Amino acid sequence: MSDLDLAQEARRLDAADALRAKREEFALDDHDTTVYLDGNSLGALPRAVPARLADVVEREWGRLRIRSWTESGWWTAPERVGDRIGRLVGAAPGQVVAGDSTSVNVFKAVVAAARLAADGDGGRDEILVDAATFPTDGYIAASAARLTGCRIRAVDAGDVASAAGPRTAVALVNHVDYRTGRLHDLPGTTAAVHAAGGRVVWDLCHSAGALPVALDADGVDLAVGCTYKYLNGGPGSPAYLYVRRELQPRFDSPLPGWNSHADPFGMSPQYAPADGAVRGRVGTPDILSLLALEAALDVWDGVAVEAVRAKSLALTDFFLRCVAAYVPGGRLECVTPTAHDERGSQVSLRCADADEVMAELVRRGVVGDFRRPDVLRFGFTPLYTGFADAERAARVLAEVLGP
Amino acid sequence: MSDLDLAQEARRLDAADALRAKREEFALDDHDTTVYLDGNSLGALPRAVPARLADVVEREWGRLRIRSWTESGWWTAPERVGDRIGRLVGAAPGQVVAGDSTSVNVFKAVVAAARLAADGDGGRDEILVDAATFPTDGYIAASAARLTGCRIRAVDAGDVASAAGPRTAVALVNHVDYRTGRLHDLPGTTAAVHAAGGRVVWDLCHSAGALPVALDADGVDLAVGCTYKYLNGGPGSPAYLYVRRELQPRFDSPLPGWNSHADPFGMSPQYAPADGAVRGRVGTPDILSLLALEAALDVWDGVAVEAVRAKSLALTDFFLRCVAAYVPGGRLECVTPTAHDERGSQVSLRCADADEVMAELVRRGVVGDFRRPDVLRFGFTPLYTGFADAERAARVLAEVLGP
Repeated sequence: MSDLDLAQEARRLDAADALRAKREEFALDDHDTTVYLDGNSLGALPRAVPARLADVVEREWGRLRIRSWTESGWWTAPERVGDRIGRLVGAAPGQVVAGDSTSVNVFKAVVAAARLAADGDGGRDEILVDAATFPTDGYIAASAARLTGCRIRAVDAGDVASAAGPRTAVALVNHVDYRTGRLHDLPGTTAAVHAAGGRVVWDLCHSAGALPVALDADGVDLAVGCTYKYLNGGPGSPAYLYVRRELQPRFDSPLPGWNSHADPFGMSPQYAPADGAVRGRVGTPDILSLLALEAALDVWDGVAVEAVRAKSLALTDFFLRCVAAYVPGGRLECVTPTAHDERGSQVSLRCADADEVMAELVRRGVVGDFRRPDVLRFGFTPLYTGFADAERAARVLAEVLGP
Repeated sequence: MSDLDLAQEARRLDAADALRAKREEFALDDHDTTVYLDGNSLGALPRAVPARLADVVEREWGRLRIRSWTESGWWTAPERVGDRIGRLVGAAPGQVVAGDSTSVNVFKAVVAAARLAADGDGGRDEILVDAATFPTDGYIAASAARLTGCRIRAVDAGDVASAAGPRTAVALVNHVDYRTGRLHDLPGTTAAVHAAGGRVVWDLCHSAGALPVALDADGVDLAVGCTYKYLNGGPGSPAYLYVRRELQPRFDSPLPGWNSHADPFGMSPQYAPADGAVRGRVGTPDILSLLALEAALDVWDGVAVEAVRAKSLALTDFFLRCVAAYVPGGRLECVTPTAHDERGSQVSLRCADADEVMAELVRRGVVGDFRRPDVLRFGFTPLYTGFADAERAARVLAEVLGP
């Protein structure tokens, strides 16, 4: 198929795209010169954020000052924002709290899950970790293991289900692999770990906001995720922690800060945990970032995650077709699965000199990223990425790779 | 002395105040109607913050997007901001890192200190905690103790020096008591804990930015603090961690997130800690809040902490004189020490019905806060609090308490 045909098809697909108007809600004024395919690392700025953040700073902090902790709803923001994230990951209200980094939430979740699993079953001392995990999860899980007397066993994410056994306390798995874009089997793995008597913690960093997640329906115990990728919360925006409702009374946090106390302003020297998702809080919430995130979540109003998923798969399918049409055979190896039920919302292509190729792509206005040693990553954010973007990225990639 | 005399004296003191011009750098446009004495809970907004934060959001995030991690200096912000805080707490560059909440930093510091102390001396299993500590420190220390096989012993902060012994691994002490405003003996306590073979962690939440702290000179091992009180970083702004330079190679973090790795983008499954203060980092830094804090720290340019301390003591002395002159005897008990070397930058007054008294003060434009069961807290922030503010607060307090 010629460039012209694919470019025309892209225009038709964009014209028929029900999410097309969403793009206008993002600051993408450079779209004539730039194709931004790095929303799986840092989501684009939603246009609603600057004015809302200015109001938070100038009025809520600058004029109301301390009164805003109650009058502007600052104190309850972690749960309020958490519930809005919850809707996107299949969690009914009262189970998600926003705050801290993903790493800190992994620590809370893994230690708490290990304690749950060991409860009445002290023989469970094994923490299964996805061998290809984003590294922070592995590092933090190792620390959690060291502090709780467990040991780490690394297995491929696809093998967690069969690896779980009578010693398994916790399995910590990435829903979508950050490097390959492979989507793992959340319902099946969760059921298998449960059948073995263990608990499962899912890292949703690369799935939340890109595809449906059904934490409640799939019986997930605990989950964590960041909000600066497909949720567009801003650089390093607060992460979140999901604790399944029926586990909350036994959620025993290793970070029992004053914000998780049943009566924080009682200032009691004795710790008494709050009920509900609040128990996952630690210290004073970072309000500026949290309320910027809250404003960023407005773009999800009226959006069904299923529609986002359908467009995501169409975009990545189309991008792969364009790459196949434009790039001579043998120059690229696709490491992202072609099967829909194994694919997240990114396409990872292995090639020689990938670092230099990505640098040249960026110079030519196609912004993806490079992951060592040889992977080009292209993230597709259905709320603002179009089919013409995908076609153009593939065309420029072919130009960079040469004949 | 009559009201008129004290009001005149306040005007003379304000006119002679070398820090007077600093007040203009804060958003305090309501100073005709409001005396803000709650900067020990939430510092006022520095005027430089809104424009800087707008630039971070609209240009750095909105237009440069992912490039800002390098081009806008986002990645190194925790150390850069840490060094600026370091100047205010007597820490040479390379020892302070900004990020996470105070509670999370207490956890890092106490676990790391316990590991340092136990290193080659396994008999040290006692964590001394200030009995009147801000509660989060005690809760987190208890969690650290549970996870490291230590036990907690609560003693009065003034008794930590004598309580430290051969079992002491760590002492965690507040530099200034949040409730009473009592300043504790940092050099003497540190030396005594060291003489007993233990490590000391100081919580500087209520001292940094209000009085000189000499972490390096006094040999402090580790310290933590928040930045939203006297450092005016904004609601829930990032906290910080100090790790003394010579201890950094042995600083063994319980939260070894990918940001603390020697080669974070190597994405190695094996953890290898970075050298220096970076080792205290955990996850991706919260850039919006961190850069708002950085802009807030500009007000410290050219300011000597010693000058701030001199004014702080003059302010609290003057406030106490006004209270003594205006309020009938027996209505209030001052729980803040009158000796300068035992006083932080707040005045805490005990009285009957303190909650209702504070609510009425706030209605009349004097904003302090109430701490259960019976304490009125008035924080004095020398960069923006004047002597006329102190006089007026005392006068309104007398009016509220009645004849």
